[in-house]
Amino acid sequence: MAGPVNRRLVLARAPTGALAAGDFRMDEAPVPEPADGEVLCRTLLISPDPIQRMEMRARTYRGGLQAGDVMGGFTLSEVVDGGGTDLAPGTIVSCQAGWQEYAAVPAEEVVPVTVRGPLTHHLSVLGMNGLTAYFGLLDVGRPQPGETVVVSAAAGATGNVAGQLARIHGYRVVGVTGSDEKNRMLVDELGFDAAVNRRSETFAADLRAACPEGIDVYFDNVGGPVLDACLLRMRPHGRVVCCGVLSQYDSDAPAAGPRAVPGLVISQRLRVEGFVVLDFADRWAEAAEQLAGWVESGELRVLEEVDEGLEAAPAALVDVLAGRNVGKRIVRVAEARAPAERRPDGASRSA
Amino acid sequence: MAGPVNRRLVLARAPTGALAAGDFRMDEAPVPEPADGEVLCRTLLISPDPIQRMEMRARTYRGGLQAGDVMGGFTLSEVVDGGGTDLAPGTIVSCQAGWQEYAAVPAEEVVPVTVRGPLTHHLSVLGMNGLTAYFGLLDVGRPQPGETVVVSAAAGATGNVAGQLARIHGYRVVGVTGSDEKNRMLVDELGFDAAVNRRSETFAADLRAACPEGIDVYFDNVGGPVLDACLLRMRPHGRVVCCGVLSQYDSDAPAAGPRAVPGLVISQRLRVEGFVVLDFADRWAEAAEQLAGWVESGELRVLEEVDEGLEAAPAALVDVLAGRNVGKRIVRVAEARAPAERRPDGASRSA
Repeated sequence: MAGPVNRRLVLARAPTGALAAGDFRMDEAPVPEPADGEVLCRTLLISPDPIQRMEMRARTYRGGLQAGDVMGGFTLSEVVDGGGTDLAPGTIVSCQAGWQEYAAVPAEEVVPVTVRGPLTHHLSVLGMNGLTAYFGLLDVGRPQPGETVVVSAAAGATGNVAGQLARIHGYRVVGVTGSDEKNRMLVDELGFDAAVNRRSETFAADLRAACPEGIDVYFDNVGGPVLDACLLRMRPHGRVVCCGVLSQYDSDAPAAGPRAVPGLVISQRLRVEGFVVLDFADRWAEAAEQLAGWVESGELRVLEEVDEGLEAAPAALVDVLAGRNVGKRIVRVAEARAPAERRPDGASRSA
Repeated sequence: MAGPVNRRLVLARAPTGALAAGDFRMDEAPVPEPADGEVLCRTLLISPDPIQRMEMRARTYRGGLQAGDVMGGFTLSEVVDGGGTDLAPGTIVSCQAGWQEYAAVPAEEVVPVTVRGPLTHHLSVLGMNGLTAYFGLLDVGRPQPGETVVVSAAAGATGNVAGQLARIHGYRVVGVTGSDEKNRMLVDELGFDAAVNRRSETFAADLRAACPEGIDVYFDNVGGPVLDACLLRMRPHGRVVCCGVLSQYDSDAPAAGPRAVPGLVISQRLRVEGFVVLDFADRWAEAAEQLAGWVESGELRVLEEVDEGLEAAPAALVDVLAGRNVGKRIVRVAEARAPAERRPDGASRSA
């Protein structure tokens, strides 16, 4: 192969059942030549997101993925060649470059990032997960003073931020995870009021004890039995924020629907509402600004786990699908150039 | 038995499976003496409501019913003795006197009715069903210009009003019922744009054809398979108004939950919201005024079926649970006194 090489992770086969790292293989291709209207980006950080497991089945709003395709996904990237845009080489951008070292990305899908703090924050608390937690809790859940918020997958990338935002706003917050160790962390380090282990045989009773007044807002990242259990504890006029279905992404067997729908939804006057963070794009900057402020004041702790090297991405995704992560899992593919080189306008020098 | 007699329908046994008229028996008791704070009411009209089947199981927000209890339920009644209140004898009131000729009702639960048109309208289009349709469609569903509204149990007491209100407001409206005959009536007489038979083998395809652009607001009176089918046709940002679960009231076997919850709720950004008309009590008068205006202008047709005699109530409830009704089923227990006698202040003389 002549010229510079682009290492890429492609889907080796359509996964069946639980995803395995072996469902992917590394290949090499020439670094792409950006066409008109494209920006050549170098991948710095990859975001392995559970929803990607759904994309492989072509059942979500983002489209499907075939064997042989480069694995997709959100990245933090660095501009190599801005094409016809005014993006200077070295500019840090958010895009969906996928699991590869270089990508030619349509210019309209490349979003310049005003770097604030570590680059990784732009894939966690200031990225899709943080923004999802922000809009899901505050705009969809709309908790009121004195209310109880329950968050599932509460040690996960989105859940930990949703729970902390609830705490910052003064609501009582209860986390649900699959491990006592995570739960101790939520209470001892993140300031949750309580946390419940969904794998415990006493889960329903534990949830009841943790929410003696019932649940006003349930921020649901998982669906399945945890959704069922929380629905039964909802207070009148409670809100269920439908954010994710972690219990289902990695399974071919569709779960039963929640029996409380619609009967209990009527008798308790519940609002069960789904959302997608992309719909709030016009307010991302405003939300990121607030989130960054809470991070800088120390009120919002940032939980991240960083794996090194492109080849770590498949195992990282398998891990987050199985809940083997605390906070945001990130795969570092390359280091950014020094900040001073990155942006000639000085805007990023504070990074 | 000395003194005047009160004929009452009591629950003979806890029903199992589908309700039968034989689950009730008629008994006689003395006409009750109203205690302090009670109003003695004479029952004129009974509203056999499907939700009463749930109340027998004590699973709803209104409480339960035991064998031997007088069957409950909404009535239009006439004041015999106002007790300490300023309710004159003959005043027409709405209350929950149940299935009996006389009842002593707590004064705070007795709502005087400004009679407008036939008395029956105050149990149908101007009563709970009409108000439920009004607030469910307009306040919970909140349709927008150009949108498609689907109503299930669309020939029923609430559904026919919800569908007509959608038509009056200019939305495209599609009914779902269990009979082609009902569907013809919806389209030919009530102005629905289309109607689909849920019992047809081609129901899913028929629904799709009737809603080529998808469904924006689904006013759900039934739950079960019709809810499943409609969820799959919801447009992005669609709303499901959870109003009733007719498919479930008369069954001991709980239905499976809707599999589209929460996955499709997220990807399509749906809002699934339950409500209870009692929560809108402070706006009933305003809504009834509007409904009466549409009735009087002929825009809103009133569908009622009136059975004669208290003893008809059990079969009437069995019928509405099985969908053997068109519009509001009402049981007439007694005629009101002449309007001129009813209210000395003249307010009701226009009735």
